[in-house]
Amino acid sequence: MAAISGFPEFLPEGRFIETRALDILRQVFELHGFAGIQTRSLEPLAELSRKGEITKEVYVVRRLHAESGEEDAWGLHYDLTVPFARYVLDHAGHLNFPFRRYQIQPAWRGERPQEGRFREFWQADIDIVGQSTLSFHHDSEVVLVMLEACERLHHELGIPPVLMRINNRKLIQGFYAEIGIADPLAAIQIVDKLPKIGEKAVGEILSQQGIGAKEIDLILRFAAVSSTVGSVKDQVQAFGLTNEILQEGLEEVQNLFDAVHAWFPANVVIDCKIARGLDYYTGSVFELELQGKESLGTVCAGGRYDSLATDGKTTYPGVGISFGVSRVFVPLISKGDLRGSRSVPSAVLVAVDSEDQRPHANEVAHALRSRGIPCEVSPNSQKYGKQIRFADKRGIPYVWFGSISGQIKDIRTGDQSDADALSWTPPNEDMIPYVIRT
Amino acid sequence: MAAISGFPEFLPEGRFIETRALDILRQVFELHGFAGIQTRSLEPLAELSRKGEITKEVYVVRRLHAESGEEDAWGLHYDLTVPFARYVLDHAGHLNFPFRRYQIQPAWRGERPQEGRFREFWQADIDIVGQSTLSFHHDSEVVLVMLEACERLHHELGIPPVLMRINNRKLIQGFYAEIGIADPLAAIQIVDKLPKIGEKAVGEILSQQGIGAKEIDLILRFAAVSSTVGSVKDQVQAFGLTNEILQEGLEEVQNLFDAVHAWFPANVVIDCKIARGLDYYTGSVFELELQGKESLGTVCAGGRYDSLATDGKTTYPGVGISFGVSRVFVPLISKGDLRGSRSVPSAVLVAVDSEDQRPHANEVAHALRSRGIPCEVSPNSQKYGKQIRFADKRGIPYVWFGSISGQIKDIRTGDQSDADALSWTPPNEDMIPYVIRT
Repeated sequence: MAAISGFPEFLPEGRFIETRALDILRQVFELHGFAGIQTRSLEPLAELSRKGEITKEVYVVRRLHAESGEEDAWGLHYDLTVPFARYVLDHAGHLNFPFRRYQIQPAWRGERPQEGRFREFWQADIDIVGQSTLSFHHDSEVVLVMLEACERLHHELGIPPVLMRINNRKLIQGFYAEIGIADPLAAIQIVDKLPKIGEKAVGEILSQQGIGAKEIDLILRFAAVSSTVGSVKDQVQAFGLTNEILQEGLEEVQNLFDAVHAWFPANVVIDCKIARGLDYYTGSVFELELQGKESLGTVCAGGRYDSLATDGKTTYPGVGISFGVSRVFVPLISKGDLRGSRSVPSAVLVAVDSEDQRPHANEVAHALRSRGIPCEVSPNSQKYGKQIRFADKRGIPYVWFGSISGQIKDIRTGDQSDADALSWTPPNEDMIPYVIRT
Repeated sequence: MAAISGFPEFLPEGRFIETRALDILRQVFELHGFAGIQTRSLEPLAELSRKGEITKEVYVVRRLHAESGEEDAWGLHYDLTVPFARYVLDHAGHLNFPFRRYQIQPAWRGERPQEGRFREFWQADIDIVGQSTLSFHHDSEVVLVMLEACERLHHELGIPPVLMRINNRKLIQGFYAEIGIADPLAAIQIVDKLPKIGEKAVGEILSQQGIGAKEIDLILRFAAVSSTVGSVKDQVQAFGLTNEILQEGLEEVQNLFDAVHAWFPANVVIDCKIARGLDYYTGSVFELELQGKESLGTVCAGGRYDSLATDGKTTYPGVGISFGVSRVFVPLISKGDLRGSRSVPSAVLVAVDSEDQRPHANEVAHALRSRGIPCEVSPNSQKYGKQIRFADKRGIPYVWFGSISGQIKDIRTGDQSDADALSWTPPNEDMIPYVIRT
């Protein structure tokens, strides 16, 4: 793993698990009608450096032998949202709105090397984007799709169960406005650090920003509002605030909660301390953590934005959510929580008696493959014992001896029996490697 | 397509075809026991700039706010061979040899913008790498695996049939040595341009290199040797040359041809003008073109190298072949030769009567998805006619009306009938989009 800090690299067993995860995410997204796209890895630097706090993390790209006068105009994308916004504008005339897309690609951040931070990482994003308008029911839709994917990753690959925390920017902004916070976004970005630095530190920073003790107390009490302690409506109404934005946010977050809770009662809570640092969210916000692996932090997040992109005439509102594939799988695989059952796809090693018999072994392999059974032919014609050890070392469960009418040996049990390569099939669970949870 | 020259980007219909192609390549590779790996996108610049002729094409990567004194140490990989060689050395202790891997990733070349040249492109590579030794039968194995993948791409996605041209570096080098060429590699790199610039131009360049008229004549006659005009052994023996390297190369290329021809008689020829420009090939070389689309050039190539990598103690010989996914699919898709049948994965649009009926529509969709049928729920509850037009615009073939016990309409024929969402299934050919060849 990871010869260079921040650039995770798997052995084949680990990559197999990551590939299965990407397949599951894609399958779920496609079942829900999301179309896959890929954007180029490079974007104009100007586009990438607009968002204040991310500027420093961009990797700049230039040709080694750039002509003199050729500017540093490009950078590697640091997420899939900025390139998607550009894609929507570039191709708007050829897309049908609301446009539902998924995008599974690596992204790069030029951070200083640091334990647990990735400089190259895979994300799996879904977004639904409208032209001018986008109905609110899509907010629950993206959350439900992602929770369905997470449930499959849990059952099929053994990742921990997940918890989605939801909130609404209007609720927060309405609340902050009514208690007299001058710069709600700045306060939101401070409160967003609550899970990491705690109430005391957040209170101190808010105080340094000139916010009074009474308001800080209200902010922290508001941040503690959660569906885990009772009715969120009751808790919010207890503050005695009445403004319209707050009421609208409260309605939305409750509606979102109800829609998601109906399908995933154990995996969603309203949590008013969730804010998301990014400035473009304007309604629902979501954050997902792994239950029992909270130390991995937020592994999936998203929200509603009134303007993903605009060309001056048309505005494209959207709602989306991004799953941090590397954030979840790199620690689970590299620490050995998840392991692949074998290092090769092959379910069968076809033994070779002698080099002049190799064409017959190839025919056996061809017959098995034509029925979808992954196999490889022994690279040598050493003694059978050595060929069996070759299979064993790679975790290949079966060895084939002889021609089309031959014998199959399960090397785990030692059982050996006559078999016909035109009809023999391994049990389903042996067809592809499986994931071992430890 | 391609808002910026050299960075192809597909609409969803096109990306769907590319995704299918990547799936087919991966399926075939896994059926043959190749394990998938991914390497990081960045490699040390020193590693990338060692190979003379590629240096100028590397994209250098640095952090936007690199500390002073922080060097430009990284570049984006320009192929998948250099990173794979590094991967083998990094992880040799954890790999089993011979190690069979496939790798499907983008690569980047910082070329000047130019029609038909990509600066970001996908490749699909397979290689088999041994520790110290690697049997010759693996040479035919990688060619056969790639031809099987190409055959599936032809039948399932409609790419043209392919032709694999094979040759052997030992044969060329033995020939050149015996006729007295001082620098065979330099001559090989010139002769490699034959298909592009023709005999006359190649002869002139060879002459400028100080090679005599008699030798140039021999070189060009040798380059015309081909299995399409008769026995290659006879044609080569007619030159009356006898050295050992030449004989060894002749044996190898004939063995490779026989092994491949037995499975793909219409897709392989020996062609003595094939040389491959790269200096690391030491035996078999292969080049593949699309029949009837020769203008796309070599879309897949590879060969045998005695030393993929070495750590000073152990040498890792290998044989591999690389399929240029973008080279094949970007022109075929962007010129409209291949089109996807719809712009979304959805086979069914579930209509919504009124917003308060949306939960029922969601239940219908859930029932269909649980049996693997991709579908989406109408984003609005407009008149049925409008919802049908919504489906039609996206190429969705079916619209569902009502609840679990409802009605299904094939909007292509207008047929509408009662259906149960717990059991109704579309015909197989409607489950996922298909590829239309024009």
